[in-house]
Amino acid sequence: MHFASDNIAGVHPKIMDAIIAANDGVAKSYGEDDITGALEAKLADLFETDLAVFPIATGSAANCLALSAVAPPWGAIYCHEHAHIFDDECCGPEFYTGGAKLYTVEAESGRLTADGLRQGLDRFVVGFDHNPQPAAVSLTQCTEYGAVYDLDRIAALSELAHARNCQVHMDGARFANAVARLDCSPAEMTWKAGVDVLSFGATKNGAMAAEAVIFFDPEKARDFIFRRKRAGHLFSKMRYLSAQLLAYVTDDLWLENARHANRTAQRLHDGLSRINSVSFAHPVEANELFVCLPDGAAGRLRADGASFYDMDAVGRNAVRLVTSFATTDAEVDRFINICGG
Amino acid sequence: MHFASDNIAGVHPKIMDAIIAANDGVAKSYGEDDITGALEAKLADLFETDLAVFPIATGSAANCLALSAVAPPWGAIYCHEHAHIFDDECCGPEFYTGGAKLYTVEAESGRLTADGLRQGLDRFVVGFDHNPQPAAVSLTQCTEYGAVYDLDRIAALSELAHARNCQVHMDGARFANAVARLDCSPAEMTWKAGVDVLSFGATKNGAMAAEAVIFFDPEKARDFIFRRKRAGHLFSKMRYLSAQLLAYVTDDLWLENARHANRTAQRLHDGLSRINSVSFAHPVEANELFVCLPDGAAGRLRADGASFYDMDAVGRNAVRLVTSFATTDAEVDRFINICGG
Amino acid sequence: MHFASDNIAGVHPKIMDAIIAANDGVAKSYGEDDITGALEAKLADLFETDLAVFPIATGSAANCLALSAVAPPWGAIYCHEHAHIFDDECCGPEFYTGGAKLYTVEAESGRLTADGLRQGLDRFVVGFDHNPQPAAVSLTQCTEYGAVYDLDRIAALSELAHARNCQVHMDGARFANAVARLDCSPAEMTWKAGVDVLSFGATKNGAMAAEAVIFFDPEKARDFIFRRKRAGHLFSKMRYLSAQLLAYVTDDLWLENARHANRTAQRLHDGLSRINSVSFAHPVEANELFVCLPDGAAGRLRADGASFYDMDAVGRNAVRLVTSFATTDAEVDRFINICGG
Amino acid sequence: MHFASDNIAGVHPKIMDAIIAANDGVAKSYGEDDITGALEAKLADLFETDLAVFPIATGSAANCLALSAVAPPWGAIYCHEHAHIFDDECCGPEFYTGGAKLYTVEAESGRLTADGLRQGLDRFVVGFDHNPQPAAVSLTQCTEYGAVYDLDRIAALSELAHARNCQVHMDGARFANAVARLDCSPAEMTWKAGVDVLSFGATKNGAMAAEAVIFFDPEKARDFIFRRKRAGHLFSKMRYLSAQLLAYVTDDLWLENARHANRTAQRLHDGLSRINSVSFAHPVEANELFVCLPDGAAGRLRADGASFYDMDAVGRNAVRLVTSFATTDAEVDRFINICGG
Repeated sequence: MHFASDNIAGVHPKIMDAIIAANDGVAKSYGEDDITGALEAKLADLFETDLAVFPIATGSAANCLALSAVAPPWGAIYCHEHAHIFDDECCGPEFYTGGAKLYTVEAESGRLTADGLRQGLDRFVVGFDHNPQPAAVSLTQCTEYGAVYDLDRIAALSELAHARNCQVHMDGARFANAVARLDCSPAEMTWKAGVDVLSFGATKNGAMAAEAVIFFDPEKARDFIFRRKRAGHLFSKMRYLSAQLLAYVTDDLWLENARHANRTAQRLHDGLSRINSVSFAHPVEANELFVCLPDGAAGRLRADGASFYDMDAVGRNAVRLVTSFATTDAEVDRFINICGG
Repeated sequence: MHFASDNIAGVHPKIMDAIIAANDGVAKSYGEDDITGALEAKLADLFETDLAVFPIATGSAANCLALSAVAPPWGAIYCHEHAHIFDDECCGPEFYTGGAKLYTVEAESGRLTADGLRQGLDRFVVGFDHNPQPAAVSLTQCTEYGAVYDLDRIAALSELAHARNCQVHMDGARFANAVARLDCSPAEMTWKAGVDVLSFGATKNGAMAAEAVIFFDPEKARDFIFRRKRAGHLFSKMRYLSAQLLAYVTDDLWLENARHANRTAQRLHDGLSRINSVSFAHPVEANELFVCLPDGAAGRLRADGASFYDMDAVGRNAVRLVTSFATTDAEVDRFINICGG
Repeated sequence: MHFASDNIAGVHPKIMDAIIAANDGVAKSYGEDDITGALEAKLADLFETDLAVFPIATGSAANCLALSAVAPPWGAIYCHEHAHIFDDECCGPEFYTGGAKLYTVEAESGRLTADGLRQGLDRFVVGFDHNPQPAAVSLTQCTEYGAVYDLDRIAALSELAHARNCQVHMDGARFANAVARLDCSPAEMTWKAGVDVLSFGATKNGAMAAEAVIFFDPEKARDFIFRRKRAGHLFSKMRYLSAQLLAYVTDDLWLENARHANRTAQRLHDGLSRINSVSFAHPVEANELFVCLPDGAAGRLRADGASFYDMDAVGRNAVRLVTSFATTDAEVDRFINICGG
Repeated sequence: MHFASDNIAGVHPKIMDAIIAANDGVAKSYGEDDITGALEAKLADLFETDLAVFPIATGSAANCLALSAVAPPWGAIYCHEHAHIFDDECCGPEFYTGGAKLYTVEAESGRLTADGLRQGLDRFVVGFDHNPQPAAVSLTQCTEYGAVYDLDRIAALSELAHARNCQVHMDGARFANAVARLDCSPAEMTWKAGVDVLSFGATKNGAMAAEAVIFFDPEKARDFIFRRKRAGHLFSKMRYLSAQLLAYVTDDLWLENARHANRTAQRLHDGLSRINSVSFAHPVEANELFVCLPDGAAGRLRADGASFYDMDAVGRNAVRLVTSFATTDAEVDRFINICGG
């Protein structure tokens, strides 16, 4: 009954096999290897467009590097109050951008609202040197509260952003879960809806430590190799990073894993819904649940070995439950049973 | 009828005289001169304690440098949503600190509330490396909305801050106006109330370009000379900077100027209050007024040569009026008359 | 005949086995797992002292993070003109430290000289705010030219550094090769000789992507978790990083690999030495050779599939050859044969 | 006998008069005032071209801001080993650029050599992400050793720089002294010779605290207002800064002051040359002298009230003497007399 995070799960066997297979003889370092080349082609194919791809080992680094490529040191980056980049990266975006300001705007379950963004954009005057300069909007898909932006909202926010010369970043730490939920193409959820740069996450969905920063206009990636290297995020034995990502997007593994996680989250949702005095603080649209448990339930569950985080700020008895590709129906059902008391 | 800002006024004659007097022969550079020495002694006397003093030419620099001395690159600095350091320094604090986050908390007319600060402090977990680390609280006295913290509130906020190992910074761009309002001693409004580091402003109150960063515990200023120099804020001909400040705090000039500005602001307030459909968005406690004018008044005033800023975000027909040491009763009265229509 | 770098070799089978073994069920994230705990204990044992250990995925990141912990933004860090941190990290140390200056001093085959360091230390006046402030010395062991510092020289340089309140950093990208060469203990080559912080490399010697930053005085590591996280170098699935390092230092694997690389380098050296008109630009003391080849040899070797880098700056026909744990005697001998023509 | 620096002199009376004259009534803040407008026009006229002008209060800030506009955080900036930006700005350029590297190349009396620059440019491979990227060349005119680049050398170095897509910065802290020496136009010594951005100094030559950053291609200055403001270098009462500069370039005051300083330096040189065992470590081409004094002379001079700096690194008994617009023939002659014993 491990629902603490999707990052407590291990590496999916197919990805581990790819790592092992990559370990065959010598290979050129720093991304000149064949696997990295194959990955770039594969991702261009998957996203149906030319793109610039940079394998990165952590999600925080992917976000910070991506943001530094779209916002100057005096830029304002719009996000919501509990965005991962705001709360959980220890001022990494400020460090990487050289001082840009994360400005929080209104959101619903982590989804920026158009009004909120508009107010935020209006807040700082373009060209007025006293103010931070509007530079970028960052959307987390799925959001930190387990909600999913629909395509129309992404497009509407992107349109607002572009009208003010701001670029759109998508924090896709759980990108696959959103694509699985929307049943759309990766292209539809990104560049076709106006996204300029994507942190394409894999670690939470079966990889060991692998994300990709993807620019849909390769021209905007011109300086990225220098940003990556000076931050110590260029891997000498890049093949192992690329092998993870290549296996991840081969034969729909990424989607299968995400569908599994979403499905078990839904099963958890459905089971818990039937219990008296259980309520949900946010819609359950992917693999995260924010649940207010009955009194005493959390203690009973932990006594029986369940792991999860308390979310006091969200509500009384609130906890966060996260499923993954490795979550089993059995542990879901057991959790529901114990919870129901 | 010039109410655009207190920085449109010139230099007070006594300060200009001091600058001229300082221009006598050679003097050691970089602060080794006699005037700078005298200033340090004078300020220690004025604040009734040992302190470390650094003359700085601009208020933004004073704030940014001071904050960089009390917050690490991963620190959280608490302020209100319209603090000068948040809105009007073009990401300077983020630049100077190397990436610290300005976190906005609840305030009334720019005065932080204890509840707001407490929530902000609770927001980030000390020692948890994902979160920005609570580091400093910044109070603007007078606030950006013309309100003045009373001594009790400063002490209460400082106590909260210190209990969490946060230091207290006071942005005193209009420090003199607040002291004049409260009729207290500089010591009472700063270190006796828990302030650790002060941006002591003079430019808005009659100086040419002169502020001082003051540490009430000189030990905390240990690295400050390096911060100042690497930022290009160490003046070679420091005597002229120090001469302004020394004249400013001699014979109560600073308080006289501030009292004059406060008094003319009050006169403006009283006169405008008597006009139908005039309202005030914030209390008028020093030299700034946020007034909602009658329909058409702003246009009439500008046609007659009045200068001031619109404040659409504050309310319908809202404008900001700022008085200074140079404001005359005549221009105040004329403004009231035209406004009254 | 692959001598381009030690990072073109794959992952040692024992390390790959450890990665696979680590992939068993769920584990706490961000370093709270058992493997990371075991690693810390193991390294304390290996280095015969209390220490603070931080697994990091790349050598550049390990160096930059370590340096940022020992030098302020206005610090001077002493190194040699071709140190990896100076040439090959794309201004990473400057980025991570927030602006410190790498100051190059005299060296022999990459080993700083005491005179060179002394002159460098004398160059900037402590406490004088115009100058960068002496902060740290960085030694690369083995050096970028394949030479090895003996223990006395490390101790002498450390003494010089400490006498000026500078800390000593060791870039140990090829730490194992140096220990193998000197046949000393890790403790003797580090803290017993005055080293304060070590970048302990494993990637070039059989790991996939794993280094450790090690502080011999844990107190100096106090802020390190924040530095690591804000840079995006905290791995969620840390167990895989730690598993590599744990396997690396178990049963002397690290030393066996290094001894093998050193031995094949020596074999290469001995064979090439017997060829007319071959000369060595630097002593061959570990696993790197800087050789001036006979005219035409480089072309013949490449035509037969050999890989290596040209080093025009080092001398006529100069090339760099690097051996690794995976280098075979057969490829060494074939290289020698073709070279001899 | 005050030869410690040109910054120990006060403000020239004509500049002080301009400051006093500027203090007439209210004026728009932040550079919207008439004096700043007039200054821009005047400088465009003086330099015979369109340009972007930014008044700045200190030379270090002017240099650091200018460099940050021409070099990315991963850039290499070429200068000489004793350039002011390298030695005397406490890592300011690294701070302002966000991490660029100052790379020192060969120079003669502070003048870069073409060979030195070429080697420096060759040192780092363009587009190779491990290396700092060649970005800018910084020339100090006059140099820190009192020498003056002739126009041909500036043009030759600029050509080299531009051929590698590097921009040329001129640190003109003593710009006037060089123009006076070369008897050329400001345009000839700058943009006509390939200079892209200039730190135009006035403080050392009679101003109170005033320099200007001048871009000869205004397009390159696009972001400069944000850089200036976030660094706290935008003055609210800008008129006083601009008034200094405007007076400085009016009626050739800047050149008259410089000619006076150069002439007194030459008088000092000529007189000292006639003394046995006096030698000069660098050519005396402007207002600085690096002299090796006879044994015992320095002590005698100081006993009689002379001020100057020792320059042990330059040679036995070496001192630096600097003249200014305020130096008198009498103090020069007295110095020579005492020195001659």
